[in-house]
Amino acid sequence: MDQVDVFIFDCDGVIWRGDSLIDGIPDTLEKLRAAGKRLFFVTNNSTKSRKGYKKKFDSLGLSNVPAEEIFSSSFAAAAYLEKTQFAATNKKVYVIGEVGICEELDLIGVPYLGGPADKDSVADMGPGGMLHVDESVGAVVVGFDRHVNYYKIQYAQLCINELGAEFIATNLDAVTHLTDAQEWAGNGSMVGAIKGCTGKEPTVVGKPSPLMIDYMEQKFGFDRSRICMVGDRLDTDVLFGKDNGLKSLLVLSGVTSEEKLLSPDNKIKPDYYAETINDFFSPVPAESKA
Amino acid sequence: MDQVDVFIFDCDGVIWRGDSLIDGIPDTLEKLRAAGKRLFFVTNNSTKSRKGYKKKFDSLGLSNVPAEEIFSSSFAAAAYLEKTQFAATNKKVYVIGEVGICEELDLIGVPYLGGPADKDSVADMGPGGMLHVDESVGAVVVGFDRHVNYYKIQYAQLCINELGAEFIATNLDAVTHLTDAQEWAGNGSMVGAIKGCTGKEPTVVGKPSPLMIDYMEQKFGFDRSRICMVGDRLDTDVLFGKDNGLKSLLVLSGVTSEEKLLSPDNKIKPDYYAETINDFFSPVPAESKA
Repeated sequence: MDQVDVFIFDCDGVIWRGDSLIDGIPDTLEKLRAAGKRLFFVTNNSTKSRKGYKKKFDSLGLSNVPAEEIFSSSFAAAAYLEKTQFAATNKKVYVIGEVGICEELDLIGVPYLGGPADKDSVADMGPGGMLHVDESVGAVVVGFDRHVNYYKIQYAQLCINELGAEFIATNLDAVTHLTDAQEWAGNGSMVGAIKGCTGKEPTVVGKPSPLMIDYMEQKFGFDRSRICMVGDRLDTDVLFGKDNGLKSLLVLSGVTSEEKLLSPDNKIKPDYYAETINDFFSPVPAESKA
Repeated sequence: MDQVDVFIFDCDGVIWRGDSLIDGIPDTLEKLRAAGKRLFFVTNNSTKSRKGYKKKFDSLGLSNVPAEEIFSSSFAAAAYLEKTQFAATNKKVYVIGEVGICEELDLIGVPYLGGPADKDSVADMGPGGMLHVDESVGAVVVGFDRHVNYYKIQYAQLCINELGAEFIATNLDAVTHLTDAQEWAGNGSMVGAIKGCTGKEPTVVGKPSPLMIDYMEQKFGFDRSRICMVGDRLDTDVLFGKDNGLKSLLVLSGVTSEEKLLSPDNKIKPDYYAETINDFFSPVPAESKA
């Protein structure tokens, strides 16, 4: 605890599971705040904006979490566009994704096309037909989109291949947890579709990109060696922490079992691990049990 | 001519451009037939079956071309399933793609789901919702699909990730020529979407896969050194010929200019090149002009 000023929490599997808060979390967060720690909550889910996530936190009884502590990948996309001074180009963004990305673009005053508005759009594919794109598109942001369709794919393809628009992905997660009943195809599908017709690799702004840590360092002046990444996944959360020079804590309240963590096959070792973040105040050093 | 028994023609840019036959083609094809040559017509477009392409040949005045000479990637997918004795597994195929793939599967008696039937399907994404898949799916065939949607992507994801179904792609073309007015996102998008949510690489059955040449060798006993691949693209058609030990002829009636062919940057050299296949009887050896 003495070595950490800032905790970054992955949400699903750490704070909640699907739509259910994990027991004891509100008390633990309050204890950390009382001890003077800064808290951030990150999610690669881009379907909600910070404001949209704030509502989810409120509904789960975590109304003490302000929108400013929430780093959704929709916000990360907007933060990246701010950092690269996209607004100064007077260009627009084409969105494959849901309302979260659009709300974040509204907040930074960047105009956009696509997203939910193109849910039912169909290109003219008859003889001589074409899809007309707005030539002022300078970037394509691709996030999870349950209404992805051929029109959106073709629009993005033309913007990237013909207008030279930048290709930005909120994240590359193969699967996501739309519902608890099964795994669902994630934004890896939407990004893969655009990679497959452009041959281009995107700039990724969510985990495991270092952008968020760069942002915190610049905005708040944090020392990254005193930040601890807390997550339930070895190959995203813990790796993200290690790759960015952060401390890392794995919790067993999500997808990773203690057996998997301690298996000789697992090469990704967190600094600490615990059953849940409620055990934060007495985490077990990974080495002592491994 | 003496060194070649079999000509394999790419169609678009060689036989026709979009919906227009290139002048003089019927006479040239007849001359080749009269000289005892075997002719095949290949296309990576999977939206039509052999039978569907036969109609296109007929409508362009090439009614002498029988369906058996047409190798669409929809047929290639069916030929691959026959070669691997898929029918003996009593499993089904899930199709992302259009009617061409379905018609070819009907011809080999392999049952399938998806394709045009899932054009408007929507998964239950409400709380606790899930998409129920038919557990007898043993392969997913992914071809160009202008009605691709999230339901189809999720269905394919579950079949591949959870049922262990084989992932088969008709082709990986980044762009395709749905209309002459612009380039359109190709099957690279649909395949990219499934790669992105499974982390798996597909078995590709269309160009540049060697499957078609293996098929011709086995079925007709051709000597591949006496086959000539004729196409308008260096990086697909000519490369396909070279990689498979065939002779290659580039025609300038499609996307490749003589300037590009002869540029020092181009490392892919055909054995011959000509303005159109009408110049077949007097092709210019590439070396003499290069």
